[in-house]
Amino acid sequence: MSQNYLYKLRETQTNERRCVGVLPSGTMKTESRLVQWICWLIVITLFFLTGFIIGWFARPTSTDTSHDAGSRRHLREFLDEMRPENIRDHLRKFTRLPHLAGTEQNLQLAEQIKGEWLAYGLDSVEMVPYDVLLSYPNISQPNYISIVDELGNEIFNTSLSEPVPEGYENVSDIVPPYSAFSAQGQPVGDLVYVNYGRTEDFFQLEREMGINVTGKIVIVRYGNIFRGNKVKNAMLHGASGIIMFSDPADYCAPGVQPYPDGWNLPGGGAQRGNVLNLNGAGDPLTPGYPAKEYTYRYNLEEGVGLPKIPVHPIGYHDAIQLLKNMGGDIPPNNWKGALNVSYRIGPGFTDGFSTQKVRMNIHTNNQVTRIYNVIGRLRGAVEPDRYVILGGHRDAWVFGGIDPVTGAAVVHESVRSVGKLLRKGWRPRRSIVFASWDAEEFGLLGSTEWAEENAKVLQERAVAYINADSAIEGMYTLRIDCTPSLHTLVYDITKQVSSPEEGEEGLSLYESWHKRDNWTDDRDAPRISKLGSGSDFEAYFIRLGIAAGRARYTKNRKTERYSSYPVYHSVYETFELVERFYDPSFRKLRAVAQVRGGLIFLLADSQLLPLDASQYAGSLTKYAHTIAQLGRKHPDALVKYGVSFDSLFSAVENFTVAARDFHERLTTLDRTDPIQIRMVNDQLMYLERAFVDPLGLPGRPFYRHVIFAPSSHNKYAGESFPGIYDALFDIERTANPKQAWDEVRRQISIAAFTVQAAAMTLTPPA
Amino acid sequence: MSQNYLYKLRETQTNERRCVGVLPSGTMKTESRLVQWICWLIVITLFFLTGFIIGWFARPTSTDTSHDAGSRRHLREFLDEMRPENIRDHLRKFTRLPHLAGTEQNLQLAEQIKGEWLAYGLDSVEMVPYDVLLSYPNISQPNYISIVDELGNEIFNTSLSEPVPEGYENVSDIVPPYSAFSAQGQPVGDLVYVNYGRTEDFFQLEREMGINVTGKIVIVRYGNIFRGNKVKNAMLHGASGIIMFSDPADYCAPGVQPYPDGWNLPGGGAQRGNVLNLNGAGDPLTPGYPAKEYTYRYNLEEGVGLPKIPVHPIGYHDAIQLLKNMGGDIPPNNWKGALNVSYRIGPGFTDGFSTQKVRMNIHTNNQVTRIYNVIGRLRGAVEPDRYVILGGHRDAWVFGGIDPVTGAAVVHESVRSVGKLLRKGWRPRRSIVFASWDAEEFGLLGSTEWAEENAKVLQERAVAYINADSAIEGMYTLRIDCTPSLHTLVYDITKQVSSPEEGEEGLSLYESWHKRDNWTDDRDAPRISKLGSGSDFEAYFIRLGIAAGRARYTKNRKTERYSSYPVYHSVYETFELVERFYDPSFRKLRAVAQVRGGLIFLLADSQLLPLDASQYAGSLTKYAHTIAQLGRKHPDALVKYGVSFDSLFSAVENFTVAARDFHERLTTLDRTDPIQIRMVNDQLMYLERAFVDPLGLPGRPFYRHVIFAPSSHNKYAGESFPGIYDALFDIERTANPKQAWDEVRRQISIAAFTVQAAAMTLTPPA
Repeated sequence: MSQNYLYKLRETQTNERRCVGVLPSGTMKTESRLVQWICWLIVITLFFLTGFIIGWFARPTSTDTSHDAGSRRHLREFLDEMRPENIRDHLRKFTRLPHLAGTEQNLQLAEQIKGEWLAYGLDSVEMVPYDVLLSYPNISQPNYISIVDELGNEIFNTSLSEPVPEGYENVSDIVPPYSAFSAQGQPVGDLVYVNYGRTEDFFQLEREMGINVTGKIVIVRYGNIFRGNKVKNAMLHGASGIIMFSDPADYCAPGVQPYPDGWNLPGGGAQRGNVLNLNGAGDPLTPGYPAKEYTYRYNLEEGVGLPKIPVHPIGYHDAIQLLKNMGGDIPPNNWKGALNVSYRIGPGFTDGFSTQKVRMNIHTNNQVTRIYNVIGRLRGAVEPDRYVILGGHRDAWVFGGIDPVTGAAVVHESVRSVGKLLRKGWRPRRSIVFASWDAEEFGLLGSTEWAEENAKVLQERAVAYINADSAIEGMYTLRIDCTPSLHTLVYDITKQVSSPEEGEEGLSLYESWHKRDNWTDDRDAPRISKLGSGSDFEAYFIRLGIAAGRARYTKNRKTERYSSYPVYHSVYETFELVERFYDPSFRKLRAVAQVRGGLIFLLADSQLLPLDASQYAGSLTKYAHTIAQLGRKHPDALVKYGVSFDSLFSAVENFTVAARDFHERLTTLDRTDPIQIRMVNDQLMYLERAFVDPLGLPGRPFYRHVIFAPSSHNKYAGESFPGIYDALFDIERTANPKQAWDEVRRQISIAAFTVQAAAMTLTPPA
Repeated sequence: MSQNYLYKLRETQTNERRCVGVLPSGTMKTESRLVQWICWLIVITLFFLTGFIIGWFARPTSTDTSHDAGSRRHLREFLDEMRPENIRDHLRKFTRLPHLAGTEQNLQLAEQIKGEWLAYGLDSVEMVPYDVLLSYPNISQPNYISIVDELGNEIFNTSLSEPVPEGYENVSDIVPPYSAFSAQGQPVGDLVYVNYGRTEDFFQLEREMGINVTGKIVIVRYGNIFRGNKVKNAMLHGASGIIMFSDPADYCAPGVQPYPDGWNLPGGGAQRGNVLNLNGAGDPLTPGYPAKEYTYRYNLEEGVGLPKIPVHPIGYHDAIQLLKNMGGDIPPNNWKGALNVSYRIGPGFTDGFSTQKVRMNIHTNNQVTRIYNVIGRLRGAVEPDRYVILGGHRDAWVFGGIDPVTGAAVVHESVRSVGKLLRKGWRPRRSIVFASWDAEEFGLLGSTEWAEENAKVLQERAVAYINADSAIEGMYTLRIDCTPSLHTLVYDITKQVSSPEEGEEGLSLYESWHKRDNWTDDRDAPRISKLGSGSDFEAYFIRLGIAAGRARYTKNRKTERYSSYPVYHSVYETFELVERFYDPSFRKLRAVAQVRGGLIFLLADSQLLPLDASQYAGSLTKYAHTIAQLGRKHPDALVKYGVSFDSLFSAVENFTVAARDFHERLTTLDRTDPIQIRMVNDQLMYLERAFVDPLGLPGRPFYRHVIFAPSSHNKYAGESFPGIYDALFDIERTANPKQAWDEVRRQISIAAFTVQAAAMTLTPPA
């Protein structure tokens, strides 16, 4: 207030008594009363206005622009609360006993997790059962492979189990190595060696080497592609059985000792695993629907993806015995592994052994079995109908030392840390769902059945799915596979996590990762990869179109060529494996926990969803060029069959513009208008959904993501534009090029349409 | 303020001068100053508080609880603005010339509509083209049917066109009656009469009458089921061609003169129409994707639903010539129409004519042709990303006097009326989309292609679709077909519309309708029917799961047995037909306009979506009982094959509880919290979506609604639980009962799952 004004105010106050007096008061002059009234009016107005303005601004609106700063403080607390020693304890606790899907131990573990999550403070935790097809060895008739002489006598048998590691000798219920869902049978025949059993290996075998495997037993080495694809290829080519072995070339790192002296696979170790070709169907008997009591079940013969031939895995000690006397041609060098054998192709054994045959003895049973997911929920404070999911499996082939318990331990620590914040009164803007899936090892069954049961709700409300399978597969640096719209968030969060590496105390995880694995020459940032399949995000990402990602510590992809990690799916995956070799300080696992947890936290608590459509645009551009280049290897055919990628490029260009404009509009968004915020968040949330084609990829109705899906030839490899990729895969080898190129044209058209439709979802509504 | 308080206030004011004096003022006593300060504080606080409170409440939040009352006032204005004379003018204007899909006239009409909608005040209007497969007669080789003698001479030919009604003699481009998408060909053979050509008619013919139609030309009467189903049945049974005729029993009302003296079908009139079996695919060459320049097109041989045999429609004058000399058995009475012939079944002609054969001469061409939808938009004020759609087709077989222009005129008047409100500053809460579809007559092509192009956005944002095909098909009362969640809104709006009937000046449309067509003995309310198919809502409702409904004036279903209306799809559908016979006052059409428009208005402008989940629960309960009763006709089989409807009843019960609880929670909802409102509205909007199965019904990937779809045997009839219905349809006639009952079990399981999943969407989130 100015002095002058104060002065006037004082003047007027001399008359204030009259101001309030009962009117009219005949003793006063009219002009004086007017002045009084005016001054009173001013006073009233002043105080009223002050009150009004404060009232106006004091009223809370549903959104809070200062929210994000608070959220960042809470993020810090959340990250700092996660401790290496806790993760160690969780890992120790969850790896004492085997917990195979469908067993009593795994149910008990589920109950334990449920109890602890409730104690940590989640709003609710429930056990969600399904009755799915599992597969176990027959205890009274073990599986093995024999070499038999002409009289049928077994002159060599593969081992019935792996040597049990020290400290676990008294553990019962260790399931021996087997191929889950193998057909039963005792085929006898000559062996044929087919390298990794890939499509191209079989092609080379038949067309170049002139060997037909019909009625033969094929033997292939593990690695390179998903084992189920090897089995499918063997079936397609008429094999009567298939044996898979772990070759040291693929499962031993140079200079490393076999477990327990190092982390390499011992000769007696073998890789368990399912050999289904589900293509995202979940439970083979209830494709598309949750395996509940009332659900119609197909017969075994109609089940999805079940192999029709016996399948068995062996270690390299046993493999040597089968391979060493093989006859036939010497294969090309890239078919040779690291065993001291010649890797001859066969068929059958060499002179002197040629009357010997191989017999598989497989008695594994398929069996509908009850499994249990554990689902923990934390209700969002502002938008309870938006879900951010952190899910990973609990079931393990044996102890699950790496797979999956490094993942489960990390989820457990996230829940504990979130519980701490909850007790301080914090609650995320959106709901968070924590999931401990069952029966992942049998075909992602628990996660897929839950996705099927909740498909409607998830489709409408799920913001993102972060996967929490094995948190470590190497000791080198971070590995991220995620949808492009999460790239920016991944970089953000990794900058807020410290490097777990010795001697990098001041560095962020981002910096540590960046210097070890730069993306490409074009892009100066840490490499992020595409999502493939082979873990529980599959139904969420590839079927439902929910933005998804995964994070783990990995090996050096430039120097370490073995597949996954050497003792993968063997009995040697123990707590000690991690504690002695992979992460003695448990700081790598903590860093992974912070990345996974941090992603969940910011997705759940940011006012604006931290999803980046422009990153998607950039990736689409790159993928379009890649797939077009693949097509342009056939310039004559492109002309002859009228194949052009122009529509795809044009759609990607439209998408790029739409994404840029969308993010530009965000900068001027009214952050106090809750409906405006919700509208753009919906656009961001549904962006991934826009890439789903309800008709699915050709022949794979549950793989519906037009941008990302595994190739038909390898479930592990995520391909961009998988429809076009598959159509081009065998283009040189097709018998009907017109039809094959028509399919390429059709797939380009679908991809262009889908990208265009996604662009439309980013334009301003109405 | 109380007197007492005023008094105290007056007291304190004696000291007010001191209150504001520069402090400290040595001349005053300390206690006096304290009193001054206290009183001043009170005054300040008072005014401040008043200001604060007013400021607090003055601040607008995004939602407005008093909105709905205002919205009702605007609704009244909107309804009152629609005038019979305007609808008359629109009808007159749009029916002067033929406007067949794909023709220049229909494009011009589109341009005209676009211009007028813009002038009325819509925010934007665009023409949206697609290149779809249409089918036209060959101008130089007309289609007709002959009776030929043994030498092949034509001794009778059906007429090449309908006699043109008075006043239209100089109109060119009247397409003669034909069956669009008929195969070309000139099959010659004996005639077999198969009643309506239904599945059960062919069954009766083959099994009971022992007549095989392989290589024969079948002749069936129009009516009862969709003509495409008749053609499919003829093909399935091996016929070489099919002739469809309009029997007076089905196309003439008793006591009514043929047009132009009355509204019955003249003997020279015939029903045009497509004979596709698209099952919701849209353009036959681009199923699942919009027919744009870049879209992959299948070859004609691969096209969806194209008949492989010639098909042709005739009037009853021509039919008499074909039928009168037919031989073979006398059929059952319910196979007999109203012509003065014996309706003998054949095959072939009777003695004395038995050397005569019938030859079809069909030269109709399929042709990819450009069509145009007109899409008008009105941006929502609060939630522009929520769409309410009013769509109807524009293309007509000839003038479209009833079909579709009574519908298009009504939409036009709605746009005009909305425009008036817009000019007064009103704007709906949500966006409204007005659509003038093209090529509905060729298989719902325009609406389906647009649904395909916009599927992602519609799935995420469409609130409801109201269809605007023919607004009148009779003179008796209102007919509503809609999804159950719209029942309550339909009753609401019809109570706000006046009866259009003479002598019912004080009655509402609801009352007028109620007394003419009460639902059932159980339910005292006007009857509402299920949606079938055969108009443009199909892709929105049955494929995408968007709540949908249609309204029209109809005949008395108890007394008027003819199908649709007599001159349906003939040249006699003129403006005069409506003006002279159906609605001379145009008040019936106005009432329909008010219902359709009112539905759109309240769906777009109500704060809480006027969708009723409990009505859905009631309907599901009824449908479950109906379908179970159908199953229970086979009590022994139910036991033998372990078929039970328990899971379905249990799911329906869960849905009922969830719906009841949902609406109970709505009563205590905080209507000032925009996010709370949006959350429940999302649940309501997505409820219909929850009934969509992405896998589709068996063999019909584009019919995905598990609760409502046409039966496989008649596109026009909406069946509840169509999957179960179809599985039960032929259960007595199947060759493999085990397999057939397995399919029933499977379909029950899918229905139970879907209803259960829908119930889950209604529970409180998180």
